[in-house]
Amino acid sequence: MKIGVLGTGMVGKTIARKLVGLGHEVMMGSRTADHEGAAEWVASAGERASQGTFADAAAFGQFVFNCTAGAASIDALGSARAEDLAGKTLVDVANPLDFSQGMPPSLFVCNTDSLAEQIQRAFPEARVVKTLNTVNHEVMVDPARVPGGHDVFVCGNDEAAKAQVVELLRSFGWPAEHIVDLGDITAARGTEAHLLLWLRLRGTLGTGHFNVGVVR
Amino acid sequence: MKIGVLGTGMVGKTIARKLVGLGHEVMMGSRTADHEGAAEWVASAGERASQGTFADAAAFGQFVFNCTAGAASIDALGSARAEDLAGKTLVDVANPLDFSQGMPPSLFVCNTDSLAEQIQRAFPEARVVKTLNTVNHEVMVDPARVPGGHDVFVCGNDEAAKAQVVELLRSFGWPAEHIVDLGDITAARGTEAHLLLWLRLRGTLGTGHFNVGVVR
Repeated sequence: MKIGVLGTGMVGKTIARKLVGLGHEVMMGSRTADHEGAAEWVASAGERASQGTFADAAAFGQFVFNCTAGAASIDALGSARAEDLAGKTLVDVANPLDFSQGMPPSLFVCNTDSLAEQIQRAFPEARVVKTLNTVNHEVMVDPARVPGGHDVFVCGNDEAAKAQVVELLRSFGWPAEHIVDLGDITAARGTEAHLLLWLRLRGTLGTGHFNVGVVR
Repeated sequence: MKIGVLGTGMVGKTIARKLVGLGHEVMMGSRTADHEGAAEWVASAGERASQGTFADAAAFGQFVFNCTAGAASIDALGSARAEDLAGKTLVDVANPLDFSQGMPPSLFVCNTDSLAEQIQRAFPEARVVKTLNTVNHEVMVDPARVPGGHDVFVCGNDEAAKAQVVELLRSFGWPAEHIVDLGDITAARGTEAHLLLWLRLRGTLGTGHFNVGVVR
């Protein structure tokens, strides 16, 4: 499948590398078509990897991952043409982190709204699915890095898009019984707010290689 | 030990009953000294149980539990005399739930502040410890209701108060290795925000008898 990955940070690179490894064609999108970080990634990732602007990557992908910084996500997606997002599954992995008050960061939107909902409202024809934002980038694509049973959440308004994302998550190594569908996109208020707990846990545990499991 | 339990809802009654069962003397506090719900509880809970106003219960306890509705907590605690809270461990179990926008509720404070911090600021001589607010009232006092390993969080500025609360949690049945100390009281931003995820999980799972476990 052709997949556009928007964002050249650790999350974007990690997901893009995993997707290439799984046999997908991946275009990494950034502010400029010749972004140096993306070029390094392309050089090391083989012939199925390419780079372009955010707009190029959105147009390229049948599937689009938003791995940009949360505060930049709406702008990055907005540089794509509306028809290049319309009808596509847009996997939103970003968190609305606000570093302006120091560490640990707070969130620039939460409680009665979420970044995922802002994106869905800004791009109503995209099929936004929020997932993976509750784990460290290495755990995202290699859940076995954390031993035992632990969960990843998905939410979104389009059931078919969620089913596609679940399939992709399974190809990343997430067992079906550990992919928890929380319902519509407003559930992102919960999974994004989880960052406030996640950041404290990272501080306490001294590692990002952890996750939570739902026990019932 | 003498313990004051403020709040006569399900959480207050469940915790008060557990404490009496463990041999503690418990006074349940409510807005009025003859609150009917508290009277019913006292009648069924035996000779170690009594009732009074919020102020009476705060004065009575060497330990004070805040089990009032989050929106009413500051007022309820404020009806106690300052010296009746000074130096005491105040276990804050409440959540800042805002039902004004319908279900599921949102939070009236979160992200850069928390109810626990509001309480600590309002009563600076109390030793506030936030805990148990991330689980259903029945799970609070009987963690084995949820099988397997799952965690409860504590946070607060006073290490000695936290140690007392950890001991009490162990007497409730929480294994030491499943009591996670997240640091100072600002970590309540994380555990209170967890409600936004918890509420979605309850909707998805159809039960409140679940919890999360931290897996590393």
